[in-house]
Amino acid sequence: MNKIEHIGIAVKNLDEAIRTYTELLGTECYKTEAVESEGVKTAFFRVGESKIELLEASNETSPIAKFIEKKGEGIHHIAFDVTDIKQSMSDLAAKGFQLLNDQPKNGADNKLVAFLHPKSSNGVLVELCQEKR
Amino acid sequence: MNKIEHIGIAVKNLDEAIRTYTELLGTECYKTEAVESEGVKTAFFRVGESKIELLEASNETSPIAKFIEKKGEGIHHIAFDVTDIKQSMSDLAAKGFQLLNDQPKNGADNKLVAFLHPKSSNGVLVELCQEKR
Repeated sequence: MNKIEHIGIAVKNLDEAIRTYTELLGTECYKTEAVESEGVKTAFFRVGESKIELLEASNETSPIAKFIEKKGEGIHHIAFDVTDIKQSMSDLAAKGFQLLNDQPKNGADNKLVAFLHPKSSNGVLVELCQEKR
Repeated sequence: MNKIEHIGIAVKNLDEAIRTYTELLGTECYKTEAVESEGVKTAFFRVGESKIELLEASNETSPIAKFIEKKGEGIHHIAFDVTDIKQSMSDLAAKGFQLLNDQPKNGADNKLVAFLHPKSSNGVLVELCQEKR
């Protein structure tokens, strides 16, 4: 893993959370983006080489809606930057990690992404993230 | 906030989790450290400019034991690197964030630390972290 690409935080109200994190982080949100396929609206902040991604569900069947219903607002996932996502997926599968995707899919912020099952990594939902070239 | 200093992950068994995260991150644990005052044993991995901190409870009254009992294993907190922790605490308090500590205290890895109440930040336990000089 090259770096922490971002930390994803599930929130109920994106606009309110943007105000909170603008104050907390001392920096402006640089992008908002809807990812229809995932049922989320997102907002990004830069912190050093990493980002904070706020996630609001855009429909009731969104994974974020289910997460908040079960656990409340809070940290949803950690995304690690990788150079070659297919290679990383294959390496991790060979090491016994359970992947939630067979193939990389399109994520927010111009990325190819794939997820590992939290059971593989002590309850942490891990996202692999490769910048689209 | 200068950067994500580390992400803290609550685990039941530190030795097993070290093996898992060595495989996952593709890097060796560079330090283990017991913080008696917090009731935790910790292990650190470097990822880019940030770290992953695994936390195992060293007694039953440890905040980590309580967290795992309530929520299971998973991400416990995000720590942000700050230049002057007292200044950051005072600035955030003035903005209405609720601090869990009046004064910085000694944390793992040669740091002064203080925590914000998760209610202030959408369910996220935020740690401020300043390298001891």
